[in-house]
Amino acid sequence: MIIKLERLEVQSRRDMEMIDVTADVDRVVAASGVTDGLVLVMTCHTSSGLIVTEGVECLERDVLAHLERLAPRQPPEGSGGYWHNRYLDFDGRVGFNAADHLKSILGGVNCYFPIENGGVVRGSRQRVNFVEYDGPLARTVLIQVIGQ
Amino acid sequence: MIIKLERLEVQSRRDMEMIDVTADVDRVVAASGVTDGLVLVMTCHTSSGLIVTEGVECLERDVLAHLERLAPRQPPEGSGGYWHNRYLDFDGRVGFNAADHLKSILGGVNCYFPIENGGVVRGSRQRVNFVEYDGPLARTVLIQVIGQ
Amino acid sequence: MIIKLERLEVQSRRDMEMIDVTADVDRVVAASGVTDGLVLVMTCHTSSGLIVTEGVECLERDVLAHLERLAPRQPPEGSGGYWHNRYLDFDGRVGFNAADHLKSILGGVNCYFPIENGGVVRGSRQRVNFVEYDGPLARTVLIQVIGQ
Repeated sequence: MIIKLERLEVQSRRDMEMIDVTADVDRVVAASGVTDGLVLVMTCHTSSGLIVTEGVECLERDVLAHLERLAPRQPPEGSGGYWHNRYLDFDGRVGFNAADHLKSILGGVNCYFPIENGGVVRGSRQRVNFVEYDGPLARTVLIQVIGQ
Repeated sequence: MIIKLERLEVQSRRDMEMIDVTADVDRVVAASGVTDGLVLVMTCHTSSGLIVTEGVECLERDVLAHLERLAPRQPPEGSGGYWHNRYLDFDGRVGFNAADHLKSILGGVNCYFPIENGGVVRGSRQRVNFVEYDGPLARTVLIQVIGQ
Repeated sequence: MIIKLERLEVQSRRDMEMIDVTADVDRVVAASGVTDGLVLVMTCHTSSGLIVTEGVECLERDVLAHLERLAPRQPPEGSGGYWHNRYLDFDGRVGFNAADHLKSILGGVNCYFPIENGGVVRGSRQRVNFVEYDGPLARTVLIQVIGQ
């Protein structure tokens, strides 16, 4: 049984963006020596996400606008505001990113793919995207390979 | 360590529908010979999903209507339209299914269950559903069993 | 290859609430003897969820209010009501929790973390939360450890 864990450093450069890490996933799998098994990908940050979708810029814009509509930075009218966007004793500062956490929950934070004959099995349009909701920041994505 | 990967072909017959694949998951696990381990299920398509919920028709209608409300085929007023629903150079055609990708992201694309004593461990109401957002189409669902 | 499955009993005390089970996940991993592998966590109930986010009360309130806005107990105006909230032959009673299932689908029902050197690898802010949408109820969460 082979188990490999790689920490991928990702630097986001905008407030919100999708960063395609599919090639990194393929690289870690190829280097692991695993021919049959699975690969798991996870973000380590609660104001970021991991989304499997098509890798085209127009869709990226739609996905980010969509999540902003569903979990808007400005609290929805009549909501009384976000509770997390107040002075936070445990942080010693005013919170501001409630909506980023909400986006992270909606879009999800991990994914997995099977490995067969040494290659990652995925649909022809499926790309693995780290999603920044609270950038720019230096981020860590975990890529774990398990198999034989 | 036993690792088995099956590609399940699913034919959707409507624009949007949920197709219960729980029996297929159970069948693949039983045939694998794995008594302890896990089974992972994933759709290969970015305009479809994989959802674990109760398997009753009334709820299926609610789930699909709900996702249509949150990610409507007609772009929300004031949104300026979906970017993906324009002429796409890389596809050589006009895109039309932005909202289907958005539904896929909201509902998720995979699930997993433990295997114990040769059986899939799940809650009494939990069913595994392939979800079509962009049908009718021939689709592929991956069912992978890992264990001993 | 070590495979351990634990059923964690969780008692919710409110209609909706987040219950932090991170310490239980750590405990099960420590007791398993696995030094390298992964841990998977799943709720067994279709009107509950499993969400990885920061463990602060203010954010818990935002998450629950957010999911209630997106999947409200009272069906959205113009929707014609939820189909699941009618007399259900198979249950012998009137359904009432359509929106709880919808919340479960939006927020997700499982998560996973790598195990390295005997410890769970997760971001410094990431907590594992069982999420009740339909309480108070006695619930079961599965924690499975796989590795060596």
